[in-house]
Amino acid sequence: MNEAQAQLAPVLDAGGPQLARLLRSTEARLTEVAAGHGTLLAAHAGGTLSAGGKRLRPMLVFLCADGEAGELVPAGVAVELLHMATLVHDDVLDRAELRRGRPTVFARGGRAAATATGDLLFSRAFAELASTGSAEAVRALSAASSALARGELMQRADAWSAEVSPERYLERCRLKTASLFEASCRLGALSGGKPELADALGRFGERVGLAFQMLDDVLDVSGPAERTGKPRGADLLDGTVTLPLILARALDPELGELDLRSVVSGPAQAAAVCDRIALTGALGEARRQALTHVAEAKAVLGAMELPEPRRGALDLVADSVVERYA
Amino acid sequence: MNEAQAQLAPVLDAGGPQLARLLRSTEARLTEVAAGHGTLLAAHAGGTLSAGGKRLRPMLVFLCADGEAGELVPAGVAVELLHMATLVHDDVLDRAELRRGRPTVFARGGRAAATATGDLLFSRAFAELASTGSAEAVRALSAASSALARGELMQRADAWSAEVSPERYLERCRLKTASLFEASCRLGALSGGKPELADALGRFGERVGLAFQMLDDVLDVSGPAERTGKPRGADLLDGTVTLPLILARALDPELGELDLRSVVSGPAQAAAVCDRIALTGALGEARRQALTHVAEAKAVLGAMELPEPRRGALDLVADSVVERYA
Repeated sequence: MNEAQAQLAPVLDAGGPQLARLLRSTEARLTEVAAGHGTLLAAHAGGTLSAGGKRLRPMLVFLCADGEAGELVPAGVAVELLHMATLVHDDVLDRAELRRGRPTVFARGGRAAATATGDLLFSRAFAELASTGSAEAVRALSAASSALARGELMQRADAWSAEVSPERYLERCRLKTASLFEASCRLGALSGGKPELADALGRFGERVGLAFQMLDDVLDVSGPAERTGKPRGADLLDGTVTLPLILARALDPELGELDLRSVVSGPAQAAAVCDRIALTGALGEARRQALTHVAEAKAVLGAMELPEPRRGALDLVADSVVERYA
Repeated sequence: MNEAQAQLAPVLDAGGPQLARLLRSTEARLTEVAAGHGTLLAAHAGGTLSAGGKRLRPMLVFLCADGEAGELVPAGVAVELLHMATLVHDDVLDRAELRRGRPTVFARGGRAAATATGDLLFSRAFAELASTGSAEAVRALSAASSALARGELMQRADAWSAEVSPERYLERCRLKTASLFEASCRLGALSGGKPELADALGRFGERVGLAFQMLDDVLDVSGPAERTGKPRGADLLDGTVTLPLILARALDPELGELDLRSVVSGPAQAAAVCDRIALTGALGEARRQALTHVAEAKAVLGAMELPEPRRGALDLVADSVVERYA
C-alpha cells in the first residue's frame, strides 16, 4: 500500500489477496511501460508513474470483475495510463511545478516534452487495451478519453464566466471525471466476465465519479491546505467555476457581482473569497448534492446481483469518496 | 480534389472512381466527427478538418486494400484524425498562428483549448477504428501514435544539439513520420482483406514516409518559400537538427563550430545559414539518400503480388513524394 492508498485501506482489506495481487501486477506493468518506450519516456514519466496515486480507477476495474481474468490487468493499466496522460497535460496548462510532492513532467522537461509525454501515455493506454483483443473495451476507453478532452475544453471555455449553471457544472464533472470512473467499471465488467452488468456498474462508477469531483471542488474552498496539498482557492486562481461558487453567488448578490478575474490576484485574495463562499452556506449545499450521487451509486449497487466480497468492497469505495471529506 | 491534392492528381487518376468514392466518404465522416462532439470541438477543429490536407494517409489506406470493404473508411478517418491531432499539438508547441493559410486552433482558442482539441482528435481516431472491431487494427494505430509521440520527444530533446548523428536523425524520421505512413498501409491491408500483405505494404509505407520527411527537410533549407508556404530555415529557427545541417557541418568545419542557437536569431540569419548549408553540397547528398528510400519502396512494391490499378497508383504515390521537390 502506498501513502495515497491509505484512505482506501478499508477497500483494500475488503478486496483481499486477489485485489492485492491485481494491484501489484498493475504496478509492475506500469513500471514496464515507463521503461519500455525509450529513455525519454523513462526519464519524464518514470517519476510520474512511480509517484503512486491511489490507483482508484484500476481498483474499480478489478472490483467490477469476476475473478482474475488475464485481461483485467491490461484494462487496469490502461485506465491509469489515461488518467496520468490527462494529469501530465493538465500540469502543462496550469504550469504546475509539483504533483504529489514531486516535480511534474512539465517542471522537469518543459512544455514540449510534457505534451509529448502525455500523448505517449495516451497511446500506451490504447495499446495496453488493444492487447486484450476486445474492440468493445477499446470503445469504452475511447468514449471516456473523448469525454475527458471535452470536459477540459468546457472548463477552459467557461473560465471566469459568471454564466455557468449548476447543470452545466454537472455536465462538466461528468465529462472530465465521471466518464473515466464509468469506463473503469465498464471495463471491469467487460474484461472480467460480467458483460451483462456493464451498464449498471457503469452507472455506479459515474455516480461515484460525480461525487468525487463535486467533493473535490468543495475541499478546494474549505481546505485545510494540509489535507489537500494545495492552497485553498486553487480553482478560483485559474478561473475554474465550481458549484460552491455558483451557489454562493446566488446567495450573496454582492459576491455575484464581483469580477473574480480582477479580484483574485493571488493566494490571499483567493482565500478571502473562499471564506466568503463558506459564509453563504454554499459548501454545505454542494456537499449535500454530492452525497445524493453517493446514495444513488449505493442504490444501483444494492439492486445488482453481485457476490461478496465485491459488493461490500464497492460499497466501501463509495464511502471512501465521502470519508475523504469527513 | 482540393488544392493540396493537386500534386497527387496522377494518383487520384490511377485510383479511379473507387478511390474517389472512398475519399469522399472520408471527407463526409471527418465533417461528422468535427460536428458531433460538442460545439467547442466544432468551433476549434472544424476549420482544421475542413482546411483540407492532401489526405495522403487515407489514400495509402485505400490503395493498400482490396476493394471497398466497410472498415476502410473508419481506418482512413482514423489515420487522418491522428495526423491532425499531432499537427494541432505541434502548433501549440511552435506557437504557430497559421497552417494551410488558416488560423491554427492555437491561434483561435489558445494553448489550453488546442491541447484539449488535439487530445479529443486523438481519442476520436481510436474510437473510429474501434468501431471496426479489429484489435489488430487498434494495435497498429497505437503503435504509430506511440512512435509519433516518441519522435516528438526526441526532436525536442535533440534541439540545437551538435551531437545528432545521421542514424539518430533517421530514427527520428522513422518515429515522427514514417510510422504513420507504415500504419496507414498496414491498416489498408488489415481492414481491406489483404492481411497477408500487411508486413510488405507496411515496409513500403515506411520507406515512402522516410523519403517524405527527408525531402521535406531538404525543402526547408532550399526553399523557395513560395512553394513551402513558410520561410526558409524554419527548422533552424526552432532548433530542429536535420540531415542537411548534419552533413553540412561535417563538410564545413567552421559551420560545425557555430553555436546555432545564438547565431540564428531571426529569419534573415536562418536564410543565411541555409545558403551556407547549400554551398557545401549537403542538399544534393541528403536528396540522394532520400531517393534510396523511394527506390527501396518501389522495390518492395515490385516484389509483391498486387493487382492493377493498385500497384500503379502506389508507385505514383512514391513518385509524388519526389515530384514535390523536383
